[in-house]
Amino acid sequence: MTLELFGLKEIPLVKKGDNIAKIIEEDLKKEGLDLEDGDILIIAETLISKAEGNIIRIDEIIPSEEAIEIAEKSKKDPKLVEIILQESKEVVELGPNFIVTETKHGFVCANSGIDESNVDDGLAKPIPINPDASAKEIREYLEYISDKKLAVIITDTQGRAFRVGAIGTAIGCSGIKPLWVRIGEKDLYGRSLETTEIATADELAAAASLLMGQANEGIPVVLIRGFEAFNHLRDTEIGIKPLLRPKEFDVFRK
Amino acid sequence: MTLELFGLKEIPLVKKGDNIAKIIEEDLKKEGLDLEDGDILIIAETLISKAEGNIIRIDEIIPSEEAIEIAEKSKKDPKLVEIILQESKEVVELGPNFIVTETKHGFVCANSGIDESNVDDGLAKPIPINPDASAKEIREYLEYISDKKLAVIITDTQGRAFRVGAIGTAIGCSGIKPLWVRIGEKDLYGRSLETTEIATADELAAAASLLMGQANEGIPVVLIRGFEAFNHLRDTEIGIKPLLRPKEFDVFRK
Repeated sequence: MTLELFGLKEIPLVKKGDNIAKIIEEDLKKEGLDLEDGDILIIAETLISKAEGNIIRIDEIIPSEEAIEIAEKSKKDPKLVEIILQESKEVVELGPNFIVTETKHGFVCANSGIDESNVDDGLAKPIPINPDASAKEIREYLEYISDKKLAVIITDTQGRAFRVGAIGTAIGCSGIKPLWVRIGEKDLYGRSLETTEIATADELAAAASLLMGQANEGIPVVLIRGFEAFNHLRDTEIGIKPLLRPKEFDVFRK
Repeated sequence: MTLELFGLKEIPLVKKGDNIAKIIEEDLKKEGLDLEDGDILIIAETLISKAEGNIIRIDEIIPSEEAIEIAEKSKKDPKLVEIILQESKEVVELGPNFIVTETKHGFVCANSGIDESNVDDGLAKPIPINPDASAKEIREYLEYISDKKLAVIITDTQGRAFRVGAIGTAIGCSGIKPLWVRIGEKDLYGRSLETTEIATADELAAAASLLMGQANEGIPVVLIRGFEAFNHLRDTEIGIKPLLRPKEFDVFRK
């Protein structure tokens, strides 16, 4: 029982309008990797945002009064705060150098997922507009050219409550259920598991992050091969939503 | 750039007093796997708790008044709540069928990490007494017999705030820094990363969880090979503590 992860090393710096699926196709060729049934491609969100041209010039932003107020409380640049607010549905928590929001997609994360790393100075990069749709488009292209059943997961690196350090986290998916509901299955002693729901897409994202690194490695795509539950979790319509806990069920949101 | 994960399939059901390091040694032999420098062994905590005999008979517990009160609020068995309280420093959040505590180790998790799966009926299994020490003991034994530099990580499956589903999470480690502090390193554009701290041990735990499953697969140990940052993160004294956010720095704890 083996799982293999391949980091795709030949992905060029992406610019607006680039076709990520084609770029992955070309990389796989260069690396001599043929796609197989059950392969899962994990793609860093930065690649999608850049191809979408979803990059914001910070100095062109005019901060609102709310942004100026929150900037004072959080000790952040008011223009950056304005961008964070524009990408969010609501501010969840606020502290010194610290804004946690719920993004328009429904992700609860720091700074609406706005990233200033791996873009040019003066630019801010939001989370892609519709990561599920991007994942679906890439999966369908790669399935078409390979005639294999695949999954695609778009990932971000996000912090957590209660624990230090960020980890690779799924923000979009296609071809696989992100949540593995195992309620009713049996444990080693034949007892029914009562509450076991595994966030499989997040585990795949975290695994890929071990190869991606977060600085200048330049490995924004990882191929995971040998995930045995692939067929069981196969779903071509579902997206990331099953992993997002609705506000009313989250005791950590007041 | 490749990462390989091997699930160890020949681990027997463990009982009190068993030597986990020796059991892993024997499994590796059966599987024909020789340890290599940089190999990381990920071990499910259930194995450690069972070998420690750290299993509690639920019907022998006499619940305190506090346990009875919390049992009413959380709609749980008062005896189980008493065990949860005994394993905890403090209750962090409480809701219907829902108790989040800080364990004596400092982990913020549901039910103090008490597990009723994969033990016999009527038994509850707490988190191991000192997962860092267990990891160290196992690492030192396996390093001694192999003459290789290794790491060992003990993992649990834990839920998260804001997201549905549990994921493999590190609760003890030895031989590797659990947190990769990358502040000051450069991104692809030569800019300094400002706040990048990666919870590497948690990513390794999540990756291994993809092979372990959580029901009756019976794969409680996974070998991860090819993690390139191993040498950079090598540390034979550090444990899991860098991943635990102190209460005073956690805005999600009131």
